[in-house]
Parts: sequence; C-alpha cells; structure tokens
Amino acid sequence: MAENKEKSTIVLFSGELDKAIAAFIIANGAAAYDHEVTIFFTFWGLNALRKDEPVQVKKEWLEAMFAKMMPRGADKLGLSKMNFGGLGPKMIKHVMKKHHALTLPQLIELAQEQGVKLVACTMTMDLLGLQKEELLDGIDYAGVAAYLGDAADAKVNLFI
Amino acid sequence: MAENKEKSTIVLFSGELDKAIAAFIIANGAAAYDHEVTIFFTFWGLNALRKDEPVQVKKEWLEAMFAKMMPRGADKLGLSKMNFGGLGPKMIKHVMKKHHALTLPQLIELAQEQGVKLVACTMTMDLLGLQKEELLDGIDYAGVAAYLGDAADAKVNLFI
Amino acid sequence: MAENKEKSTIVLFSGELDKAIAAFIIANGAAAYDHEVTIFFTFWGLNALRKDEPVQVKKEWLEAMFAKMMPRGADKLGLSKMNFGGLGPKMIKHVMKKHHALTLPQLIELAQEQGVKLVACTMTMDLLGLQKEELLDGIDYAGVAAYLGDAADAKVNLFI
Repeated sequence: MAENKEKSTIVLFSGELDKAIAAFIIANGAAAYDHEVTIFFTFWGLNALRKDEPVQVKKEWLEAMFAKMMPRGADKLGLSKMNFGGLGPKMIKHVMKKHHALTLPQLIELAQEQGVKLVACTMTMDLLGLQKEELLDGIDYAGVAAYLGDAADAKVNLFI
Repeated sequence: MAENKEKSTIVLFSGELDKAIAAFIIANGAAAYDHEVTIFFTFWGLNALRKDEPVQVKKEWLEAMFAKMMPRGADKLGLSKMNFGGLGPKMIKHVMKKHHALTLPQLIELAQEQGVKLVACTMTMDLLGLQKEELLDGIDYAGVAAYLGDAADAKVNLFI
Repeated sequence: MAENKEKSTIVLFSGELDKAIAAFIIANGAAAYDHEVTIFFTFWGLNALRKDEPVQVKKEWLEAMFAKMMPRGADKLGLSKMNFGGLGPKMIKHVMKKHHALTLPQLIELAQEQGVKLVACTMTMDLLGLQKEELLDGIDYAGVAAYLGDAADAKVNLFI
C-alpha cells in the first residue's frame, strides 16, 4: 500500500551542477528502491528547472535582470568548486560522458519517469519573478508547508 | 504532552543571508505546525546571531580580527551566489520587501516568539573568540552533544 | 545487539576544511554516544581522504589534471569562507591549536578508532580518476545504493 512506502525528501537550494547531480543521483537511487521521493527546489535550485530557451513572459525590470543573470536550466549550471569561468563544468561533463554517466537533463528526465515529485517553491518563484511557463513541464508547485508535511513522514531528509 | 511533539533540528553552519533565510523559513514553518524546533548555530552561522552594534569586550589580536572580518549580525550577511560585493543582498532585500516577506531579523524575532530554540555552538564561540555579550539575548548555549541529543529524537534534521 | 544501535549517516560532498571538521565533530560525537556512524565521501569530499604524498598511479591527462588541481588530503583543504588564498585555513588551524582542538587528520584518525565507517563513493572515484592507492587505508568503497541502505535505517542523515 502507498502509505507503507518509505519516503525521502531533498531540498535543492543550491544552483550548482555538481550539487544538482548529487541530488538527482540520490533521488533516482531512492526511487529505484521504491521510495516515494520529493525534491523541493528553492532559491538557486530553481534554476535547474528552467527551460533552456528564453520564454516570453512579462517581467518588471529587476525580475528581468534576475532572469538574465541566473543560469537558464540544467545544462547551464556552474560548479561549486573549480568552476574556472565555465571550464570546470565542461571538464566534468566530458568525464561523465566518457564514463557513460547520465547528464543532468537526463537525470531529471529519469526522475520524472520514475515518479520523483519535483516541486518548485512558489515563494522563491515570486521573489525571483520566475513564472510557471519558464519552468519544465510536469512539475508541482507548493510552499514550505507542503515540504514540511512530506518531510515529517520521511526517513531521509537532506538539504543540498 | 511535550514528549509527543514532533521535533526538528537544523544545523546552520553557513553564514549567508539566503541560507539563513531558508533555515528560518523552514524553522518557523515547522514551529507553526507545533514542532519543537532547534536551530544549532555553528561556524559562520553564528554570525546571524551577532548583535549589529559593536560590543565592548576584551579580545586578543586574532579574535579581534575575526570579529572585524565576519559580518556583524543578520542584516550584514552576504549571499552564497550573486553577491556582487553587497549589491546582491540589497536586491534580494528589495524584492523581499516588495513581496512583504519578513526580513531575516524579523524571521529571527518570529522564531523566538514561536519558541524555536536558538543554540549557539560554544566550541565555535571559543575558536572564533565570540562572547555571549556579542550575541542576541534569549538564546541558548551548548555543544555538539546537546545537538546530537535533540537530533536523535527528531524526525527532520537538516544541515544548512 | 547491533541492530538496536542508533544509526547516523553523513554525506560529505564539500571539500572544505571547515565543513569536513564539522562533519567529523558530529560523527565522532555520535560515535561516542555509541551510534553506528557512516560518512559517505562523494565529489569534492573525497579530497579529505587523499593521502598527502603523491602516489604513483597511471592516469590519463584529464584525470592527472584533476588530481593536481584538487587538494591532496585533509591538511590541504581550504575554507568555505574567508579563505584568503590559504591564509584563512592557517588562522583557523592556529586558533584550533591554541584551544587544543583536534586537527582534521586527528579527527579522521579518531573516527577510524571509534569505528566510524568511512566510505568512498566509487562513482566519483571513477569520474575524477581517483584510485584506491591514493586514498587512506582502512576505508570502505561503495556506491549510492549502499548509502541509501544505511540512510533508510538511520535517525540522523545529514548532507554537508
């Protein structure tokens, strides 16, 4: 029965490639073990959910600036260390390809296929002026209360 | 009964505005759901608890230098990303005000009103030469043993 | 009985001195309370497990470059804040010595003596081209599945 499934939650706060990869590897692993997994994307973590092409939406000046300065989607994220102005992510992607590891966009797709619940934090969306049209399809939208409800039922709760 | 309350703990290790805001939003949310919540401030996280005016205490040279270099209180913290020499925090505070979101000092005040236990890590205080007079009133002081005792009883434990 | 012991897990993702120290202080504290503790070292966290002298192993060009650019062992890690090109870690080590706090290499040794399980993430080792000969003796090797198995049984799970 569904209520007997182990539950896991991850808050993805960070907007870096390496941390997002770690979050999705853990989430996909847990989903493979039949856990009910939720990733709650907040602050910079939301950038991993952005569509990679610009979306025409009406924004005020500051929101437009945020949108321009923040990485547009999973393929544009930098590294938390050794970023070297974008060379680091290229190096990491190169070795991941060599080892036939899934890319971050592929990890996100796999997560969606496995039923991992991807939740965008609506409060951060308001603050940064991100709109639903700009984020991936098939994700959920909720606030901290929903996250806390999931976390209180879960065995494994991580903040990344 | 108190012993039946859900418990949550957060270690706030990071000294950045965005991470401290996330910690307090989660903590205040959990407290609103009647969880017993503890935030354990260690390393750079302690800076969020500093009073914003200088306090006259005797310090050795290195401790005085730490005190000078680290941000003095919740209103002085930088961002973990897009800090831009202090412009980033101004931008975030601007959009938070526009959206009527609570500031970090207000979030801390609300936490104290809701009975969230704010605990300063005494080991870090020793290392960085921070003294009780320099930190906010009404907080607790403890070491890692007390944190572990709380965490072992809690359902949600996060490291931020 | 072993199966009644409290369990704790830490993912050490970050490769900075201050975060590694925090991880080991929590781990050693939990072990002192007779918890079964696992630290799972992934991504930059693996650098804390590197031997401090170069080890002769065959590497391809990019792997050799990673090995050269990443800090070689617990004594070479930088700080997550106030690193100041290596001055910060010197200052922190100085105050830790003054306060008779254990150094990171000593904290690692203590963890091993207390039976804390140190697990190197084999997937990251493959990606970064790190080989067993280059890491400390007496550690374990496993993937995300083993971590998830431990975490699902544990009360305290942290991502650092």
